[in-house]
Amino acid sequence: MSVTAAQGFTAGSTAAGLKTTGQSDVAVVINHGPMFSAGAVFTRNRVKAAPVLLSEESLATAHRTGTPITTVALNSGGANACTGAQGMRDAASMAAAAGAAVGAGYEQALVCSTGLIGTLLPMDALTAGIAAAAESAGDSAEHGTGAAQAIMTTDSVHKEAQVSRGGITVGGMAKGAGMLAPQLATMLVVITTDADITHKQAQKAVADAVTTTFNRVDSDACMSTNDSVILLASGASGVKPSQKDITQMVREVSADLARQLVADAEGASHDVHVTVTSATTEDAAEAVAREICRSNLVKAAIFGNDPNWGRIVAAAGCVPEQVAPFSADDLSVTVNGIEVCRGGGVGRDRDLVDMTPREVEIVVDLGAGTASADMWTNDLTHDYVEENSAYSS
Amino acid sequence: MSVTAAQGFTAGSTAAGLKTTGQSDVAVVINHGPMFSAGAVFTRNRVKAAPVLLSEESLATAHRTGTPITTVALNSGGANACTGAQGMRDAASMAAAAGAAVGAGYEQALVCSTGLIGTLLPMDALTAGIAAAAESAGDSAEHGTGAAQAIMTTDSVHKEAQVSRGGITVGGMAKGAGMLAPQLATMLVVITTDADITHKQAQKAVADAVTTTFNRVDSDACMSTNDSVILLASGASGVKPSQKDITQMVREVSADLARQLVADAEGASHDVHVTVTSATTEDAAEAVAREICRSNLVKAAIFGNDPNWGRIVAAAGCVPEQVAPFSADDLSVTVNGIEVCRGGGVGRDRDLVDMTPREVEIVVDLGAGTASADMWTNDLTHDYVEENSAYSS
Repeated sequence: MSVTAAQGFTAGSTAAGLKTTGQSDVAVVINHGPMFSAGAVFTRNRVKAAPVLLSEESLATAHRTGTPITTVALNSGGANACTGAQGMRDAASMAAAAGAAVGAGYEQALVCSTGLIGTLLPMDALTAGIAAAAESAGDSAEHGTGAAQAIMTTDSVHKEAQVSRGGITVGGMAKGAGMLAPQLATMLVVITTDADITHKQAQKAVADAVTTTFNRVDSDACMSTNDSVILLASGASGVKPSQKDITQMVREVSADLARQLVADAEGASHDVHVTVTSATTEDAAEAVAREICRSNLVKAAIFGNDPNWGRIVAAAGCVPEQVAPFSADDLSVTVNGIEVCRGGGVGRDRDLVDMTPREVEIVVDLGAGTASADMWTNDLTHDYVEENSAYSS
Repeated sequence: MSVTAAQGFTAGSTAAGLKTTGQSDVAVVINHGPMFSAGAVFTRNRVKAAPVLLSEESLATAHRTGTPITTVALNSGGANACTGAQGMRDAASMAAAAGAAVGAGYEQALVCSTGLIGTLLPMDALTAGIAAAAESAGDSAEHGTGAAQAIMTTDSVHKEAQVSRGGITVGGMAKGAGMLAPQLATMLVVITTDADITHKQAQKAVADAVTTTFNRVDSDACMSTNDSVILLASGASGVKPSQKDITQMVREVSADLARQLVADAEGASHDVHVTVTSATTEDAAEAVAREICRSNLVKAAIFGNDPNWGRIVAAAGCVPEQVAPFSADDLSVTVNGIEVCRGGGVGRDRDLVDMTPREVEIVVDLGAGTASADMWTNDLTHDYVEENSAYSS
């Protein structure tokens, strides 16, 4: 069930003192081969943290030259974002420490950081911690869960997932305290597989999988400066899957982890699943789903257990015609199985809707085509406001 | 100081019983000429309320044929949105009653509604109310403030503004309880002037004025189904202003009313003024300002009196490069006069920032050009969540 579930991977962690609580805060994931393929998707935010800039560059070089990617080092307790030239030097030192731990150079390591923006990392503690974490990995696959715990920030539980079939295993870990505070709680994900795939196949698998999983979880309308989803492949199973099969397995693990992120939204009282159907294209369906997921009025109504279809329809109406063609008169909205809006107007009695389950299912039918898409968000609660106003980040 | 400040206008209001509280809920504004020009801007939401659809059509016809626009009827206590064919018939009946009150047809009246979505208006009460409101207008200009009060929903104060110079007066009224709940509290604005201008000039004046005033107030990222800004011109001053002069006067009244909307955000503890400077274009500056104004993380931090520049920078970074070219390394952020972020990194000590004033001034310098734009929003507070979750709408 962890980042070491796939053959060929070990992981370690340690408390290096980056977190003032004394909890573990550094993790290392090591690929023992025989393949050392990797792919990754990083934040699209133009303000990228130093570890993202460095990892993007190292991965691009690896893809161009065939350099192996042997390790990933991660830390909580500091994001190393908006830290200028010193931040870049620190990210390089972090990668060098991670590479050295497996007898390689900095160019074979990817790095991820999460925590406060605008403060420099305590590099002595961090580099010592990376060495200690790598040491603790030993040669067993037992320490995957410890790594998942070391990357937690405001998470209440660690997050792991695994899929095995056809002789291949894909496992992974993620951190992110729901999508309620993506900047406080940057989303970091490491997925491993023992499939025998190339850099190029790994890149395609992770890029495709993210599109319909992590990119479909939205509450704050913004990726953080540090978001990273990394896939490592060891080839240790000796099985060469088709692109379609490995992509599907990575997608399943990603979907499982993404759902865990939504469920761990501590400030939330509802997980909200928005499905848009009968759209002209999947992109159109996604655009409408995203607009609904981003509406504070919709999210606050759900917190109040109010199946407020007027707000849902008004949010849908904010999507430009050229993005999602539909007629307002054709809209229907179903909340937890009750079609409260039909033909753009009043449907069944909204008092029939049972809003007590934690999971709220919203289905919006555009009546315009045959495509669909779904997305997850949470409700807007007092605890969200409290978490994001009472604590600096 | 009101919608009857300009020569040639009267207004009336009454309690027709649409509001369960017994407060006034119907208003009529009457143009006595000699000119009967009008222009208007309506919501861009694709889900438009019946009164918006009807008024858009009537105004387009008037502009094409030269038909005078003699009256505007407004009601609170019901939005007449998502009400289908019956809603359209009701909007037409409302316009007919407003026209009849001044001895004209329905095509000379514009109509506005605000309140709950998805419920039909009590038409007998409403049409009787329109007649009574018109009757109460009499021939004096004394009742402008009563009209401004009759269109209030969750507003805590009525809103009026006036500018006079060069022999011309522009006055207006608005409703909208801050931008905190634009769907609960649709923005309705009626502005009047005694300038001698044509339909075409009126349309240009109001369209231009809205761009840099009402369109620059943003908190929920969405216009409501009913938003309307209407300008009526009587020509009673006999003064023919230049297009530039009348547009500027309408802009000043609009800016005054827009600022009053922000100030009346009952759930808010801060009014937030975001100015983006050194952008390549005004559109680029506006896009960055809007993204910051829409960030729940920024807004919650301000509620917590935290000058959290990391969240501001991260929000700016979410604007696509092609929309607003700038380099993350060139960003600076000044909060209430303290440059807390400089060159994309740490600037002056954020503890120096005094966050106690209700008005928070955020200036983001993109370092990319010479254009600028500003925008208003409010902070995200517990009261916002409460207002929008505890009460259905």
